[in-house]
Amino acid sequence: MAISVDTFFLKPDSLGSLQAQIQQMVAEGILSGRFHHGEKLPSSRKLASHLGVSRITVTLAYTELLSNDYLTSRGRSGYYVSDNAPVPPVYTPPPRPHDRVDWDRAIRHRHTGGDTPQKPRDWQRYRYPFIYGQTDPTLFDHANWRLCALRALGQKDIASLTSDYFDQDDPLLVEFIARHTLPRRGITARPEEILITMGAQNALWMAAQLLLDTGRTAVVEDPCYYALRDLLVPARCRLKALRVDADGLPPDALPPETDVIFTTPSHQSPTTATMPLTRRHALLDRARVLDALIVEDDYEFELAFLAAPSPALKSLDRDGRVIYVGSFSKSLFPGLRLGYMVGSEPFIRQARALRASVLRHPPGHLQRTAAYFLSLGHYDTQIRRMSDALHTRREALEQAVADTGLTIAGRGVYGGSSLWMRAPDGTDTTRLAKALRDDDVLIEPGAPFFAGPDRPAHFYRLGYSSIPTARIAPGIRQIAKRLAPQHPNWP
Amino acid sequence: MAISVDTFFLKPDSLGSLQAQIQQMVAEGILSGRFHHGEKLPSSRKLASHLGVSRITVTLAYTELLSNDYLTSRGRSGYYVSDNAPVPPVYTPPPRPHDRVDWDRAIRHRHTGGDTPQKPRDWQRYRYPFIYGQTDPTLFDHANWRLCALRALGQKDIASLTSDYFDQDDPLLVEFIARHTLPRRGITARPEEILITMGAQNALWMAAQLLLDTGRTAVVEDPCYYALRDLLVPARCRLKALRVDADGLPPDALPPETDVIFTTPSHQSPTTATMPLTRRHALLDRARVLDALIVEDDYEFELAFLAAPSPALKSLDRDGRVIYVGSFSKSLFPGLRLGYMVGSEPFIRQARALRASVLRHPPGHLQRTAAYFLSLGHYDTQIRRMSDALHTRREALEQAVADTGLTIAGRGVYGGSSLWMRAPDGTDTTRLAKALRDDDVLIEPGAPFFAGPDRPAHFYRLGYSSIPTARIAPGIRQIAKRLAPQHPNWP
Repeated sequence: MAISVDTFFLKPDSLGSLQAQIQQMVAEGILSGRFHHGEKLPSSRKLASHLGVSRITVTLAYTELLSNDYLTSRGRSGYYVSDNAPVPPVYTPPPRPHDRVDWDRAIRHRHTGGDTPQKPRDWQRYRYPFIYGQTDPTLFDHANWRLCALRALGQKDIASLTSDYFDQDDPLLVEFIARHTLPRRGITARPEEILITMGAQNALWMAAQLLLDTGRTAVVEDPCYYALRDLLVPARCRLKALRVDADGLPPDALPPETDVIFTTPSHQSPTTATMPLTRRHALLDRARVLDALIVEDDYEFELAFLAAPSPALKSLDRDGRVIYVGSFSKSLFPGLRLGYMVGSEPFIRQARALRASVLRHPPGHLQRTAAYFLSLGHYDTQIRRMSDALHTRREALEQAVADTGLTIAGRGVYGGSSLWMRAPDGTDTTRLAKALRDDDVLIEPGAPFFAGPDRPAHFYRLGYSSIPTARIAPGIRQIAKRLAPQHPNWP
Repeated sequence: MAISVDTFFLKPDSLGSLQAQIQQMVAEGILSGRFHHGEKLPSSRKLASHLGVSRITVTLAYTELLSNDYLTSRGRSGYYVSDNAPVPPVYTPPPRPHDRVDWDRAIRHRHTGGDTPQKPRDWQRYRYPFIYGQTDPTLFDHANWRLCALRALGQKDIASLTSDYFDQDDPLLVEFIARHTLPRRGITARPEEILITMGAQNALWMAAQLLLDTGRTAVVEDPCYYALRDLLVPARCRLKALRVDADGLPPDALPPETDVIFTTPSHQSPTTATMPLTRRHALLDRARVLDALIVEDDYEFELAFLAAPSPALKSLDRDGRVIYVGSFSKSLFPGLRLGYMVGSEPFIRQARALRASVLRHPPGHLQRTAAYFLSLGHYDTQIRRMSDALHTRREALEQAVADTGLTIAGRGVYGGSSLWMRAPDGTDTTRLAKALRDDDVLIEPGAPFFAGPDRPAHFYRLGYSSIPTARIAPGIRQIAKRLAPQHPNWP
């Protein structure tokens, strides 16, 4: 039996070369059981004409499938599905049954329903995306990342690509972080004090798991990164949210029962406040008195284009009580999922064992690619390019905000990639954000950053890491228009 | 001031091209603060002669550093450290203080000290590595993996590389698993019933976290994959280890208080027993009576070269009580850290939220690369090649075992990559394994697979996924020699 050319069609949204698409169609037909052993494929001439592609493309696809043993060729008579081609399943899948499990009872720990808001996944379709934490493809050094990835895929690095590291990390990446990244934050650390994590989220989660339980009290900043509060819930600790001021977390307000303090001293999230040196010392002193530990999330320190960043809190830590969390998500790209934590050896040893239990280790190939990208200097070049672009955008944003009379609540003295804004009292920025979507504008409402139940509703965040400079002023004008008291649908 | 050529040296064990090494040396010198702004680099002629490389190599390295703004050139007078080059930290790192934290008190949950044994990381240096679960580079289709990775690194896929997926997965990979991988195991699933995980370990860990707590009882097989027992400890449940027989887990022995059953029906780990169909039905019936859930770890099902594999237990599940765990670690490579779990939608929704809290999502680039590798048919080709090679090795191993009179305790009817062995009564295979290292032989002692405290000490596992066929017989002879009663150091 011959396979009809009519079963082949190029999907308009398909990825990959024409040859690859043809190979894929044939492979899928065999694997799904539609094409059977011994069946004859359309001739390359026929299929090429049917698909509107060149005959050589079809021939190359067939030849590749031949070498993969999906097809055989019988002299001049053409190509057939090989007898060695994979066999589709012979058993019929059972009809979909009615689920008899009471999942409400079966699931002991729920993780949905927290503070973390659903973010729009289609943000790239908006003209004015004042969103935070995504990559701007125009600022990412894609070409050199690709070269480093290719090198890390080479024969020399096959062990780092394929091996089960058990609980270890790529020594190249750890060494680079120890020798070059951490010293810029004033931190010295030996390799056994460093653990590679699946981004900062994963580092914060591990710290919470190791240090907290029902008998302990964690302090978070208010407002703070909402996902931090969510990840503390499964740790079952008591949670205190301390309102920050213009200098960040106030050490005097730390309650006596504090065990672990989660803080963002260099660049408070989301208010962007920087903690002054005197307060940093006061925080460390107070932590010493309370015998509390500090988890420092040092996000975005690389994006310092307005002034040199202050050293990390960890650099002042004489007691070993600061656990430092860094990430490449903001400076490279969030999809990379690579970060690191630095702490005393007994802590890192336990974190390593926890990580091994949860996921073993971050993939070796990505660790090695990052090590190359860093050590060849591409990372620093990228940071400079990003910082220059963010600087320009920041100036455009501050100008547009000044021109329209919007109010900045926090602006970050070193730089960063966002402004923390205050709308007029009585504004519900969640409703504002929803309304602005109709104007092609995305902003982040401020309420989810605050601990409940009485969340201030009139703050919002403006990210400028994903919006081109030219769109900033028109986007801000849209926001100002919606916020004008005379607007018919004032939020 | 000029930088001396003497500060440059090529390390004998360095990776990468000579040009890349030279670039790296210069970049590191600047970043570590050894080279300062305005300092003159050695001439390309001088450095080339000092390092014993061609002058064009040095020139190319300098040109690249020039374009990255690490260096500037001043006409014919040479290359200088650019004024725009990154500045090393100005503050001095503090002297290493004495740690004042009582970590024994601070850490609430310990993860070290479990059953998971330390595996030798230098296994590739051994001549006879009968180890389990590592990649054999000669069987891995490195070339096509590299091509797929390169394609996934392309401009078209930049979103899948760089984006924060929040809690989502690569739709291409999920679709392929739903349409092609699962049907081969008799399983039908919609995308919302599938979650990509960081390998099977991560899937098992999530199931434990979601379904267990102090009030619940988990049943594991005895012996079982040791890391499974370790990951159940933080779930704080009651743990029952049920001794398996030649047909795997005996359903009649399940205690009435059973809440969750962890099982490997297709290929018991480590005994390789396959559960017959009647017992599978009995297990599902018993689980229904107990209202218990089943977590099915369907590892190695692809490596079926002796007989067609039986459908997964999940394919018989009418109630939705089986959570299915699959992995690409054995069939592609463990360093990839990609697996998947399939279960009812309410369960997968919670698992997705838990994963988002712990690590967000497995890196997009790896998901896309795997999707290409699978959908282009390379995966099936690789499985066939691996299965052929494992078949040959298996025959060599069974022959060598027969020739030397060693005893097989479990052999796996479909295939797989290991034999479960029984040494004479009274043998301590942990001591045996240690002694065999002196003979260049690695085996896995059986004790860590068993639940304590009275672990049988005379079992061991022989993996054949990383040892060439020709070395199997001589390796087995070494084992037999050590086990011979007349051996001076009988273990």
